[in-house]
Amino acid sequence: MASQDMYALADFCLNPMGTEASIAEYVAECVRVVKKSGLKYHVHGYGTNIEGPWDDVVKAVQECHVAVHAKGAPRIHTDLRIGTRVDHKIVPGTGIENQVKRVEEILAKE
Amino acid sequence: MASQDMYALADFCLNPMGTEASIAEYVAECVRVVKKSGLKYHVHGYGTNIEGPWDDVVKAVQECHVAVHAKGAPRIHTDLRIGTRVDHKIVPGTGIENQVKRVEEILAKE
Amino acid sequence: MASQDMYALADFCLNPMGTEASIAEYVAECVRVVKKSGLKYHVHGYGTNIEGPWDDVVKAVQECHVAVHAKGAPRIHTDLRIGTRVDHKIVPGTGIENQVKRVEEILAKE
Amino acid sequence: MASQDMYALADFCLNPMGTEASIAEYVAECVRVVKKSGLKYHVHGYGTNIEGPWDDVVKAVQECHVAVHAKGAPRIHTDLRIGTRVDHKIVPGTGIENQVKRVEEILAKE
Repeated sequence: MASQDMYALADFCLNPMGTEASIAEYVAECVRVVKKSGLKYHVHGYGTNIEGPWDDVVKAVQECHVAVHAKGAPRIHTDLRIGTRVDHKIVPGTGIENQVKRVEEILAKE
Repeated sequence: MASQDMYALADFCLNPMGTEASIAEYVAECVRVVKKSGLKYHVHGYGTNIEGPWDDVVKAVQECHVAVHAKGAPRIHTDLRIGTRVDHKIVPGTGIENQVKRVEEILAKE
Repeated sequence: MASQDMYALADFCLNPMGTEASIAEYVAECVRVVKKSGLKYHVHGYGTNIEGPWDDVVKAVQECHVAVHAKGAPRIHTDLRIGTRVDHKIVPGTGIENQVKRVEEILAKE
Repeated sequence: MASQDMYALADFCLNPMGTEASIAEYVAECVRVVKKSGLKYHVHGYGTNIEGPWDDVVKAVQECHVAVHAKGAPRIHTDLRIGTRVDHKIVPGTGIENQVKRVEEILAKE
């Protein structure tokens, strides 16, 4: 399987190190990069969901590192969750929201 | 510092193993447990934000393991991000939403 | 199941933020804390394996936060992997090394 | 900065889902893939350290997903830590062992 054919759901939390403790400016820079990637994403309180072809997802994260280093962070640690499956096909751009929807549907029955 | 005095922002992604590939039922079970904990939480597409005193946060995650094992999962792997800070005081229940808000405010200025 | 009866294998990577970029002094402080806990551990190039009863494991991580804050870090982000299983009993102190051993045995047959 | 010029230290823990609970065969398959990549790596009890140019590191992880799916896992969740720095140059292949060495040197002085 070519890496471009592998669809990935991911979530990453980028931590600049060697900077001040408040990092909202760096996180905002990441959001700009992710937005520019054209991939479906969702920013939450401890990271960012992102989905798309494997290569595009990891490329977006790499570009966040480039941008955050350019903004002054000498060191970056990113924690990335990335998932793939071959048992059913994900309609591009719907993977993340469907995961939440399935859980909400189960809870709504109660 | 006593662990109960340490306020934590966290995010966890619980993965049942040795089960079917579709895990929404197990994730829903986690949401029930987290809800019962009384802690502030937010479910997203690749995990759950949760915040509170350190002990309560890790206790909620442990209770998710108990509940998901009871539901039939022989093995569980959880990936937990947990953060603490001593440079400013977080008003209980506002940490996660404020992290998102600060980033949105920066982006809104553009 | 009481949390003290749940045996956990874990791995954590503690990242001080708002400090200098080189963090070996903080990591060394963590190793001191983990050693004092009496739990079985193994330091590697991107974190520390640790195993024991769930409560003891998360307590050791919490004490690392206390110690690293005391050493001057205003903010800490930890990324913790934690796993439990109910399908077979782990002899205390052998879980981590057995996971490596099983993989090595498979590869040795080739 | 081109992604090939960015040197990364990483650590990943790949979890097959929708399989049996014992996953040593899948982990062994990952080790074969990582070995073939030619990158410096170290297998530990809860993941694998790996270092090299950013693109090569994430390519190796992607090839692990391909291989583990081919071995029968319908779903895979990987938890990847990845770090970069621009404040000092890492001699290729020495990053991971030097991180451990620096900590050991500090502890040896006591």
